[in-house]
Amino acid sequence: MKRYLLLVACAALCAPLPLLAQKAKIYPAPSEIVAAAKAEAWVPIKSSDLMIMDLAPDSKGNPRRVVIQLMPAPFSQGWVGNIRKLAATKFWDGTSINRVQDNYVVQWGDASEKKALPEGLAVVSEEDYVFPEALTRPHSLDPIFVPPNNIIRWTSFHQGFPVAGVATPDTASNWPIHCYGMVGVGRNLSPDTGSGAELYTVIGHAPRHLDRNIALVGRVIEGIEHMSSLPRGTGALGFYEKEEDRVPILSIRLGNEVLDAPAFEYLDTESDSFAAYADARAKRRDPFFNVPAGGADICNIPVPVRRKAK
Amino acid sequence: MKRYLLLVACAALCAPLPLLAQKAKIYPAPSEIVAAAKAEAWVPIKSSDLMIMDLAPDSKGNPRRVVIQLMPAPFSQGWVGNIRKLAATKFWDGTSINRVQDNYVVQWGDASEKKALPEGLAVVSEEDYVFPEALTRPHSLDPIFVPPNNIIRWTSFHQGFPVAGVATPDTASNWPIHCYGMVGVGRNLSPDTGSGAELYTVIGHAPRHLDRNIALVGRVIEGIEHMSSLPRGTGALGFYEKEEDRVPILSIRLGNEVLDAPAFEYLDTESDSFAAYADARAKRRDPFFNVPAGGADICNIPVPVRRKAK
Repeated sequence: MKRYLLLVACAALCAPLPLLAQKAKIYPAPSEIVAAAKAEAWVPIKSSDLMIMDLAPDSKGNPRRVVIQLMPAPFSQGWVGNIRKLAATKFWDGTSINRVQDNYVVQWGDASEKKALPEGLAVVSEEDYVFPEALTRPHSLDPIFVPPNNIIRWTSFHQGFPVAGVATPDTASNWPIHCYGMVGVGRNLSPDTGSGAELYTVIGHAPRHLDRNIALVGRVIEGIEHMSSLPRGTGALGFYEKEEDRVPILSIRLGNEVLDAPAFEYLDTESDSFAAYADARAKRRDPFFNVPAGGADICNIPVPVRRKAK
Repeated sequence: MKRYLLLVACAALCAPLPLLAQKAKIYPAPSEIVAAAKAEAWVPIKSSDLMIMDLAPDSKGNPRRVVIQLMPAPFSQGWVGNIRKLAATKFWDGTSINRVQDNYVVQWGDASEKKALPEGLAVVSEEDYVFPEALTRPHSLDPIFVPPNNIIRWTSFHQGFPVAGVATPDTASNWPIHCYGMVGVGRNLSPDTGSGAELYTVIGHAPRHLDRNIALVGRVIEGIEHMSSLPRGTGALGFYEKEEDRVPILSIRLGNEVLDAPAFEYLDTESDSFAAYADARAKRRDPFFNVPAGGADICNIPVPVRRKAK
């Protein structure tokens, strides 16, 4: 007897069963909508917008590569410029992952706190956490999203990244938001203390309270499991207590400086395919589901990213 | 120069600095509110409502124990009864964790699919995913929470567990909801196929679309890092492809059958301390933050649980 093995994440991947074809309508699963999207609905990601992070191999000798897509303009570009400079000067080579806090963040950088930063990094401040103008957004998605809180009334996507915003007749501002896998800039108490040399990625439920309080500079598009499955640190805030627990970073480079870097593309968040995918994620009607939720937190609608044939 | 190390999760734990005492008001951090809660605001958890899961030691020989608190009535009690029976008959001893899907679930049970279930398990069906009556709830929390979607207008807590509901003049229903660490019953496509023998816990952003589609039967209150940091499965849906990748379960017992089981208590979700804690989580004003979010998803307000002196 086959039992209990298809399970919950059938949610994510199972194809509708032919058996159910007697029902009035079969709704495709989100994954099927993505698979059926036309080539022109996919947007290539420039290799110079990728950051390739090679960790030391795991205990079995397997390589561990994490690929990050940097945040597009107009958001956080001061920090993104710093990060490009840090990668170009090989600042992170020989640094490490120093902190893994469960249901929160993985963080990396120079644990010695003594390594010299390259010259000419921009000093970026809290004004730069938001973009102070309205952005166009695909309003067709509005009914899908749950407002992220009682002040911010909408979320959407900008060039494939999750954003939120406010707008009144006199003023508007927009900002990228924290979801699983987003990459941000560690800082000290003062909001202008983060250069970009110390970075983190989210490995738990979206910490919405960090939005507008920290700069987001990208997202992990491949290999996050090499970070999310690391042992949790037992020190305060999940820092590793012993030096030998830290995970060595062999190198971090921009994608255009890595010979074997794969190419990626994301599903255009303004395409009809994305709108159908988002709607299906928010109102699951594929066969596993009895009761569709009716709406979704934007972090439950991850933007599809895939490797692109070169 | 001390730099970049306090960082984001200062968010969670840092104490306000004396330096900032010149500001008009210092708001305590959520953790400080919890630490200051009086003894009577803490509710003991009965040992018979705990499920103690001992995994095989890790590669360094360290023990791995996961503690789960079972769901209180009136929710999911058919499945909870089955789970008590499965634990009493030692059903899970010698089974394994078989699936780890990143940003989704860890799942355990009998990978052979051949082990006999104990006699007399209840057959529970989709009607049991919700409780068809109104529950009292602490309405003082209502302004804090973001509605979970465009249909369900409120979330709250019931005996320390996150719940959602709808109510009209004629009808009401309530149900527990998925947050990080919640434990649910794996099932096949048919909604009545889950006995409770196959369980999962959430290790990512809350999969809100599973609410009312799967039975929730508890939550992990200690040791989730032993599951969330496991290597991700490389098979479909994150199943481990090789038998040797599975993580052996030595035993699962109810807390009252484990001699050295620790005692736990949770912060009463109807207490003033909890209301202050939830408000502080939703509107972070401790010194790290410049812009409070103004509201929170209920999964960003995890119920404080701690070990209790015996």
